[in-house]
Amino acid sequence: MSASPLFLPTRRGTVSSSGEGALIRSIRRWLGRSSPPSPRGIGDDCAVVRPARGRELITVDPLVGGVHFDHRTPAREAGAKLLKRNLSDIAAMGGTPRVAVVALALDGRTSLAWLAAFHKGLAREARRHAVLIVGGDVTRLDGSFVATLTLLGEARGRILTRSGSRAGDWIYVTGALGRSLPTGHHHGFEPRLAEGAWLARRAEVRAMMDVSDGLARDLATLTPRGLAPAVYAALVPRRDGASLAEALGDGEDYELVFSVASRSRRPKLEHAWKRAFPRTRLTCLGRFVKAGAVPPDAVTLAEHRGYEHHATA
Amino acid sequence: MSASPLFLPTRRGTVSSSGEGALIRSIRRWLGRSSPPSPRGIGDDCAVVRPARGRELITVDPLVGGVHFDHRTPAREAGAKLLKRNLSDIAAMGGTPRVAVVALALDGRTSLAWLAAFHKGLAREARRHAVLIVGGDVTRLDGSFVATLTLLGEARGRILTRSGSRAGDWIYVTGALGRSLPTGHHHGFEPRLAEGAWLARRAEVRAMMDVSDGLARDLATLTPRGLAPAVYAALVPRRDGASLAEALGDGEDYELVFSVASRSRRPKLEHAWKRAFPRTRLTCLGRFVKAGAVPPDAVTLAEHRGYEHHATA
Repeated sequence: MSASPLFLPTRRGTVSSSGEGALIRSIRRWLGRSSPPSPRGIGDDCAVVRPARGRELITVDPLVGGVHFDHRTPAREAGAKLLKRNLSDIAAMGGTPRVAVVALALDGRTSLAWLAAFHKGLAREARRHAVLIVGGDVTRLDGSFVATLTLLGEARGRILTRSGSRAGDWIYVTGALGRSLPTGHHHGFEPRLAEGAWLARRAEVRAMMDVSDGLARDLATLTPRGLAPAVYAALVPRRDGASLAEALGDGEDYELVFSVASRSRRPKLEHAWKRAFPRTRLTCLGRFVKAGAVPPDAVTLAEHRGYEHHATA
Repeated sequence: MSASPLFLPTRRGTVSSSGEGALIRSIRRWLGRSSPPSPRGIGDDCAVVRPARGRELITVDPLVGGVHFDHRTPAREAGAKLLKRNLSDIAAMGGTPRVAVVALALDGRTSLAWLAAFHKGLAREARRHAVLIVGGDVTRLDGSFVATLTLLGEARGRILTRSGSRAGDWIYVTGALGRSLPTGHHHGFEPRLAEGAWLARRAEVRAMMDVSDGLARDLATLTPRGLAPAVYAALVPRRDGASLAEALGDGEDYELVFSVASRSRRPKLEHAWKRAFPRTRLTCLGRFVKAGAVPPDAVTLAEHRGYEHHATA
């Protein structure tokens, strides 16, 4: 699959050759069934949707040209990635995604063919997860491409936040870590929605988040004050021959990291996981200990917090 | 009030001199009481909020440097404008705003002082309308500034959409039109939230939208197929000596345009309006007629659809 160029050298086939109204009509056509008619979708001042059931979850993540994708990323994959980054955040709380709005900031030279593929990739991913694209905006931006997607979800049962881990809790991670960019995992990944919802229903799981900025950094966020993670190098699941530094420091893993109560029956949890997700690896990396009591053979995670390309507030 | 620069020539006092974690902490400090603690606000994978009551309204509008503000726009006003553009969309359906998320795409040279003022302006506007900023994201973007705000609202009673006008319906507009940029109205405006909610409760009001791309363009959107607006030049309320072309073609008025059923008692509506909003002008511009039956003395609106700086999908 060859990557089509984002910007074209001549006006033909670009955003600036299309009228503004025509561009919006094209976007709705590319989105297809993912784009319901207004006022439930694009076309009025606001989208009007049914309220969330249970609690409402909200997350926003952008896709910036040159930061989150480049000329090697197929446009369809870039479009899917915009939604998947946000789906991963809903997964990390154990929720279900519902509706999204997308704001595009575009250079006039942007290729309509590229944009078509981008939106088709976005729409396909939306359909797979029953997400509707209900609103949007298109603005001029010279020299760059910024797509910002806000995703709304709901959680009828328990949600898992980042806080609540205690001393002695076990630290688990799904899948494998590292080398997300060279392997294409950064756009090919599957958001862990089913896994997140399943984990939120397990009483022994205490806290959870997704791994997007590298495990070393993200695990610091999951660690309560006064504690430290004792993680062992040999236990870290590595993607595609990743080094330890890559597994701990690279970003964009989009896996789930979570803590499990120290006194829980781990074999029971692991057995139930295997039945529910036979193809998704689950690994215990270590546990939370009192700060200052990290065993000498554990990894010094502070040495691996290199990944800084973006921040989630 | 002098405008502070968005980009600084040296690293000191810029985003790149601040750590990523420090920047997010600063943003939360600048937002103050508008930023509730996680998981109800910034700091977890998603924000967790109560569901909307009635129906949920969703809108997204960005603020792009050089498009929606420039070096003459005070940073506080730019921050307020980011929210107000979205408030105007909630107003246009008669809803009430609730919570917002903000995604920033920033150049490393962005001034922290500018960003502080921007967020303080945003927070002040949020407090005025009881809106909480519950989530955000910060990403790198070379050479530009893009802030994208998604606003969620609710409508417990009737909502007004853009459709539903009929032949003979009267066309009304709030406030005055034109010269939004030279007068500073494009950032100083007051979103018509109270007016929009009031109008949604009036049975004789049939359809409504906000005027953001110029009346001539927006009125085309409000016009049902088979009809045309018959608007009279002498009736168009003009801001600050605006010409007719400016009043009809300039963008960023952020007023409400709506239709009123032909058989309704207009003096009763206008009297009630004056009691409710004694300081807000209300003007009847003309009415919807059958296409092809526009009187020769009415304005030819198609000649005034010049404003193209952005599109709302």
